[in-house]
Amino acid sequence: MHRRVDIEMQELRRDLLHMASLAETSIGKAVRALVVRDSRLAEEVFRTEDEINKLELAIDDRCLRILALHAPEASDLRFITMALKTNSDLERIGDQAVNIAERAIELLKEPPLKPLIDIPRMAELVQRMLKDALDAFVHGDAVIARDVCRRDDQVDELDDQLFRELMTYMMQDSRAITRAMSLILISRHLERVADHATNIAEEVIYMVQGKNIKHHAAPEPPD
Amino acid sequence: MHRRVDIEMQELRRDLLHMASLAETSIGKAVRALVVRDSRLAEEVFRTEDEINKLELAIDDRCLRILALHAPEASDLRFITMALKTNSDLERIGDQAVNIAERAIELLKEPPLKPLIDIPRMAELVQRMLKDALDAFVHGDAVIARDVCRRDDQVDELDDQLFRELMTYMMQDSRAITRAMSLILISRHLERVADHATNIAEEVIYMVQGKNIKHHAAPEPPD
Repeated sequence: MHRRVDIEMQELRRDLLHMASLAETSIGKAVRALVVRDSRLAEEVFRTEDEINKLELAIDDRCLRILALHAPEASDLRFITMALKTNSDLERIGDQAVNIAERAIELLKEPPLKPLIDIPRMAELVQRMLKDALDAFVHGDAVIARDVCRRDDQVDELDDQLFRELMTYMMQDSRAITRAMSLILISRHLERVADHATNIAEEVIYMVQGKNIKHHAAPEPPD
Repeated sequence: MHRRVDIEMQELRRDLLHMASLAETSIGKAVRALVVRDSRLAEEVFRTEDEINKLELAIDDRCLRILALHAPEASDLRFITMALKTNSDLERIGDQAVNIAERAIELLKEPPLKPLIDIPRMAELVQRMLKDALDAFVHGDAVIARDVCRRDDQVDELDDQLFRELMTYMMQDSRAITRAMSLILISRHLERVADHATNIAEEVIYMVQGKNIKHHAAPEPPD
């Protein structure tokens, strides 16, 4: 027989995985709307956003209830404080999906600027980071979590590369400016999703190893 | 005589206010570096970032300790769950200050593109939102918190206005593109700080009124 608190913790894990899967799907759909030039996919993102927002409130309430009724200890307590933060990260990933969907709808009004290769690639990387961060979270797996943190650099590099390429388009042809700007902002939104996934992974490492790796590699001031 | 938990809660409030004040000062310095064209101010932002990162860890630890040792109830419990989220928001505001400082250093290598009026104005609005969100938080004042949420729209409008203006600069003169892009990204960073302040204010309203205003005005899908 299971204790009531164990059942509640199990339900919390399930809700967070569901929330992560909604967020991941939204990012995928928002980028796919752009690639296959289908605004209906972007509109699905707006609907999922509602669902994500409701689930965020339900998860916060569940965390509060477990804390209030069961006064959990040690690892459960740490898991719940992490769940509160992860929940916010997931909701903000949903916001980024909406931002991408809005930009996609704008971009679909004009002919494509260039073949889209980097953005779907970034989206794939970012979706996988998110999925792995949540897997690491529910299984308490610091090895996967560390791998997620490492992959954040790949996304940053792709974002920088795309930024430079699109700046060149802008300088060569002023008619490209609006579309290139939208693509730059989409790339930034994806880079932010990777940051959220990295935040989740850092929390996992903290939870598992009782050790905080956040801020151990503080950014160097540029020369 | 005060109970131990009351003293710990008081110290938690004090730490969060200190963290908010560091974040607010960082934003101010990063923007001032740009306005008075002094890169030393930008470098101060990098140093404060370290302090903010350390304080974030200390605040999380304090929250965990209070939860573990005192199993606080009702309003204290809600305050702590909120403190965990607010703490993350404040740390990410520190990150935005670093982003602005990095862009400022880049911009100082070139002559100014235009007189800077909107960006310092946005920075002022955003710093005040942050200050008020934290005041609302420590005093449990939902009236101030609601006012912070309303002011987010003003910041969004300024950001949109500046975006359009800078896009015009880009289209008129390709030599303006790099600098205009940097200013657009700085404006976006400030807009994100306003979002974080709004998140904090929304949590305050939830805490005070036991009612969640988040997501009650979900974004409308664009036409």
